[in-house]
Amino acid sequence: MSTFNNNIATKFPDLKPRGPGGEALLEAERAKTSFDVKSLSKFMYTEEWLDKMYKVLRVIENEPAFDKTNRYYQSRADKIKTSLWKDRRMIEIAREQNWDEQELQIANFLFDQSTPFSLHYGMFIPTLQSQTTDEQKKLFLEPALKHQIIGCYAQTELGHGSNVQGIETTATYIPETNEFELHSPTLTSSKWWIGGLGKAANHAIVMARLITDGKDLGPHPFCVQIRSFEDHTPLKGVTVGDIGPKFGFNSVDNGFIMFDHYRIPHISFLAKYSQVQPGTGVYSKPPNAKLSYGTMVYVRANIVMGVRYALAKATTIAIRYSTIRQQFVDAASPKKWDNKVIETPVLDYTMQQYRLLPIVASAYACFFTGREMLRLYDLNQKAMQKGNFNLLADLHASSSGLKSLTTTMAIESIEDCRRACGGHGYSMFSGLGQFYQDYLPNVTWEGDNYILTQQTARYLLKTFRNVVAGKAEPSEYNHTISYLTQYLQNPTAKCPATKPSDFLNPELILSAFGFRAAYGIAKVAEKIDREGRSWNSMLVEISRISRAHCQFILVRNFIVTLQNDATLTQSEHKPINKILKTLAALFALHTMEKELSEFLLSGYISSEQCAMLKEQVISLLDVVRPDAVALVDAFALPDYYLHSALGRYDGCVYEAMTKMAEAEPLNHTLVVEGYEENIKPFVHQGKVFAKKDAAFSRL
Amino acid sequence: MSTFNNNIATKFPDLKPRGPGGEALLEAERAKTSFDVKSLSKFMYTEEWLDKMYKVLRVIENEPAFDKTNRYYQSRADKIKTSLWKDRRMIEIAREQNWDEQELQIANFLFDQSTPFSLHYGMFIPTLQSQTTDEQKKLFLEPALKHQIIGCYAQTELGHGSNVQGIETTATYIPETNEFELHSPTLTSSKWWIGGLGKAANHAIVMARLITDGKDLGPHPFCVQIRSFEDHTPLKGVTVGDIGPKFGFNSVDNGFIMFDHYRIPHISFLAKYSQVQPGTGVYSKPPNAKLSYGTMVYVRANIVMGVRYALAKATTIAIRYSTIRQQFVDAASPKKWDNKVIETPVLDYTMQQYRLLPIVASAYACFFTGREMLRLYDLNQKAMQKGNFNLLADLHASSSGLKSLTTTMAIESIEDCRRACGGHGYSMFSGLGQFYQDYLPNVTWEGDNYILTQQTARYLLKTFRNVVAGKAEPSEYNHTISYLTQYLQNPTAKCPATKPSDFLNPELILSAFGFRAAYGIAKVAEKIDREGRSWNSMLVEISRISRAHCQFILVRNFIVTLQNDATLTQSEHKPINKILKTLAALFALHTMEKELSEFLLSGYISSEQCAMLKEQVISLLDVVRPDAVALVDAFALPDYYLHSALGRYDGCVYEAMTKMAEAEPLNHTLVVEGYEENIKPFVHQGKVFAKKDAAFSRL
Repeated sequence: MSTFNNNIATKFPDLKPRGPGGEALLEAERAKTSFDVKSLSKFMYTEEWLDKMYKVLRVIENEPAFDKTNRYYQSRADKIKTSLWKDRRMIEIAREQNWDEQELQIANFLFDQSTPFSLHYGMFIPTLQSQTTDEQKKLFLEPALKHQIIGCYAQTELGHGSNVQGIETTATYIPETNEFELHSPTLTSSKWWIGGLGKAANHAIVMARLITDGKDLGPHPFCVQIRSFEDHTPLKGVTVGDIGPKFGFNSVDNGFIMFDHYRIPHISFLAKYSQVQPGTGVYSKPPNAKLSYGTMVYVRANIVMGVRYALAKATTIAIRYSTIRQQFVDAASPKKWDNKVIETPVLDYTMQQYRLLPIVASAYACFFTGREMLRLYDLNQKAMQKGNFNLLADLHASSSGLKSLTTTMAIESIEDCRRACGGHGYSMFSGLGQFYQDYLPNVTWEGDNYILTQQTARYLLKTFRNVVAGKAEPSEYNHTISYLTQYLQNPTAKCPATKPSDFLNPELILSAFGFRAAYGIAKVAEKIDREGRSWNSMLVEISRISRAHCQFILVRNFIVTLQNDATLTQSEHKPINKILKTLAALFALHTMEKELSEFLLSGYISSEQCAMLKEQVISLLDVVRPDAVALVDAFALPDYYLHSALGRYDGCVYEAMTKMAEAEPLNHTLVVEGYEENIKPFVHQGKVFAKKDAAFSRL
Repeated sequence: MSTFNNNIATKFPDLKPRGPGGEALLEAERAKTSFDVKSLSKFMYTEEWLDKMYKVLRVIENEPAFDKTNRYYQSRADKIKTSLWKDRRMIEIAREQNWDEQELQIANFLFDQSTPFSLHYGMFIPTLQSQTTDEQKKLFLEPALKHQIIGCYAQTELGHGSNVQGIETTATYIPETNEFELHSPTLTSSKWWIGGLGKAANHAIVMARLITDGKDLGPHPFCVQIRSFEDHTPLKGVTVGDIGPKFGFNSVDNGFIMFDHYRIPHISFLAKYSQVQPGTGVYSKPPNAKLSYGTMVYVRANIVMGVRYALAKATTIAIRYSTIRQQFVDAASPKKWDNKVIETPVLDYTMQQYRLLPIVASAYACFFTGREMLRLYDLNQKAMQKGNFNLLADLHASSSGLKSLTTTMAIESIEDCRRACGGHGYSMFSGLGQFYQDYLPNVTWEGDNYILTQQTARYLLKTFRNVVAGKAEPSEYNHTISYLTQYLQNPTAKCPATKPSDFLNPELILSAFGFRAAYGIAKVAEKIDREGRSWNSMLVEISRISRAHCQFILVRNFIVTLQNDATLTQSEHKPINKILKTLAALFALHTMEKELSEFLLSGYISSEQCAMLKEQVISLLDVVRPDAVALVDAFALPDYYLHSALGRYDGCVYEAMTKMAEAEPLNHTLVVEGYEENIKPFVHQGKVFAKKDAAFSRL
């Protein structure tokens, strides 16, 4: 009996992939593991968090509004429509299930797609919480928490992004009526990119230049109703809509808005920090805004933690598939299975290991640095409350550069993982395509990645000058000062390595990264301070010193945590500590190799040592290889979250690919729309058909 | 009177962008040009080609089936439907307009989107032309040329891509009926990724393992009918459909197909090179296939030429927009306009120049190398016809590595250009998003970019061994032997540069690139030949020597053509030659800087020289900056082709962004679908509405 279903074009026959199948291959991989996968997951997430995740997962996996089956087939309009559905159901389910804040967060994390309400939670409510008076909280925040009003945050304009001070929208105080008049004077003043604004929001925080008594006081926030409560149509004086399709994020209604002498009441001006006196329009300035830097650190620490998830997701897919996908027989070392030669799983090729294993290592690196940033954020918040601002500058500068460095790493790694999946990486079913598209704005928003490096570099140069002037002492919390001091004490220091394995020494690694960062900073300082070079002409080197500094931090946090962490240094966790140490070395040495010219130019390492370094990187790949699948399993990312045919826990890659192809809407009909008009006339040219389906009937 | 159209949410007010506008800014840029833009265009394309392009452009710009207005809003189903319409109209218009082959090519180039029929022209017909007997030409090729049959090329399988020898589909000869039986034994044997197969084709060239008399003779091509001529339904024994959504290329119906003991007549076996005797099934082998390597060179030369277009398109958009987009006031050197300080156009920042101008240079580099490859292809074809195979090995090896290197450069550059456009680069209206998505498969198809480097490296190592053994002499056509010989004569040579401008010396540049390539090859040869390292363990270095070799070729072709080209050395073309020389230097030195560690490790250049090199790169950016717009204008890419709001020739960026946003389908209604179910219930919670649109009516 045939396994084929003839003439149902969209139904695959009930056949198996050529063996060995993905299940067997992954099982064999997992049998090689050197450590306890669950313990490592618990160490990273805590058992409590994992329990919550599985609890939430069981709920949303079975909720139609959270079903991902159609995700890769949807048109823009479908995406928006189903996203609104998800937004509503999320509110309802959270209530039904009595979820706490963290469980709600987990649900959104697992759903893994932004929606029109995302900015209501992410920006509208937090802004109202931090910038309103009590009266405004009643008026705006309370209904926002009940979703009686749905808001967004309108800052960016068509003509202004990073330079917030340059925005053009005005809010002019009208003393006669005690109102503000919002106005968009030019086309470029249109608010643009505002998530949730295009279709969903009925309110917006609008950043506009406050003008009172003829004086332009720069951008200030206003909370403004924009759509009718009754029927959701735009209010008079408001032109609002969706900005159109984007590279990704198409489940969000990023919008534009323009105001035509649009009057809003005095209460709209968010007045916690600065005020406009009713009637007189007299303005009172906000107090020093240093405290808000703390919040930025928090946001960025979370972005770095998010990078960890991005890298974890990408590598989980690519690593698992690379142990299943077989290509060519490696003649020098043929792979055997049941005593027969099979094609070699691609992860056994050094090049594939070189492309993927350092990314696994970097996922762990970002975890340790994200965790450390959150710890320092807490420390700093407590310190600032006591009036101690000592930690702030270093923390803020590092967080800027780390946001820049790690999100750039993440997006490159997602794409590297996608390419490492070969042709199937290009299928949306890989799970890596839409992921790349949606992740990409991270390199631009919350500070453009190039511009951010200037903030870090300014701090590094200032610190360097202070160290040179003897005005900065090394401290437990400021490693920048430490490595700069060390460098200045011996600017011609040399790396002591005499054999490849010397590069495994953590102290050697840290010295190398510190020296290289300090050398770059010193060179830039010299050019600017002594040779009088302009800041603009030095921007390329400036971005390099920010990167060098942040790579030092990533490496340092990884290495030092393994040495000191109370859990990891327990004897029962020895195997975990061992593999993590290997990953730390791989991350550090692979980074050195990538940035080799800077290490060479600093004079710290020699050509001969570079050759040793390269040897050591290749050796480390060999050590990590057997644990590759276990290391991504430890990320504990459920199949629902991954939504990837290639990255499934069970390895049934080809079964999933064909199942997902069956669901392609184009396959719902045997004959394509447009056949009658566009194909048939050519095929039927001067032809007579004797009987249906006769091959070569035209001959 | 108000310029706003209240309550038509989707209509922008008739306002201008804040001045100076894009038109004025681009005009000022164009006034600074040092050379004649039209002459440079003519040099690259020929006047004849440009005339044809404008002629074709006038036709297709006004043809509804070629309209790009809806391109960025379409769902997958819409894309396929309109693509079939375009395929039909292209056939009809070409007939009406009496277009020659080149004009048809230009039309497809300008349309710039693959369609279901693309592989009919790109693979099905060429395969029939080259691999059929006269009888088969009558049977398949003639109707294919008339579109009575529509075909595709089915080689790749779910489980096999690069390793063609491993495909699983079988074609077993049945002597009793003089037929072949096509069969798909496993799920992984499903043909997959086949362009045009999913919905459009009624025929396929199927690569299947020929089995006759119990012997497996490996993959051979068969021409097979798969859908009914009468009604386009799949024939019995065939399971066929679309493989689903991809990262890009969604206007093409990439398909899958499986065969269930599907019988095809003996004539289906493409029999030009090998035959199966009817009745006996006796197989006769093809002659040596060396000639087919020539075709591969041709395909790859065209890919390199295509890279030029990709880089040209990306930089045209990014450069033009970067002169219009203004951000921050550069305090050290404020930009003035009509005597007023304006924000600085981003292209005036060194970092932006560093990100974009080397890509402009690389577009020109790829042009010169593509042209040289086509010239060598012709030379080699003529030589091979005379039995001379001397050129082939070098040409084939270089073409493999160049395909790998330049397509990787292209995709990275497209993304660099997209990011350099800031936030708006993420809008599909930038023209760079879909472009990136559609270009991406170039790094995987026609030879995976990592695997291809092994082919190049094998040749380089072999040549190295020959040179060492005194068995290879330098020749006019083999520069590999030349640089290897030079290196072996003086493996401790040093770069003579003593000041930054020394790096402008073409001879110095060529020596540096040759030395660095040779050094890398020598090191790999040493590891493999003397230390006995396995090929697998050396794959990372192997890909590096391929890249080093191909960068040498790109640099060499650029430099040498400027020295020798009959047109470019005419005195009237002095300004063009001058700016191209600057670009050649920028391309070469920027490449050196990117690969600095290899140049340093080779010992050829010192740390001090690196500092000079970096200085020189920054100086070159300054020189190129005034000609930046002219250099992209010279690519002569029409707005229809670019379909980009940011890259328009007239600079009306913001006008175009808003116009395109107005056309977003979500803006066709004021109130979003899903409002009633998902938003209204929350907003209306316990509320009474006194009058329509009353702000704060709920209070």
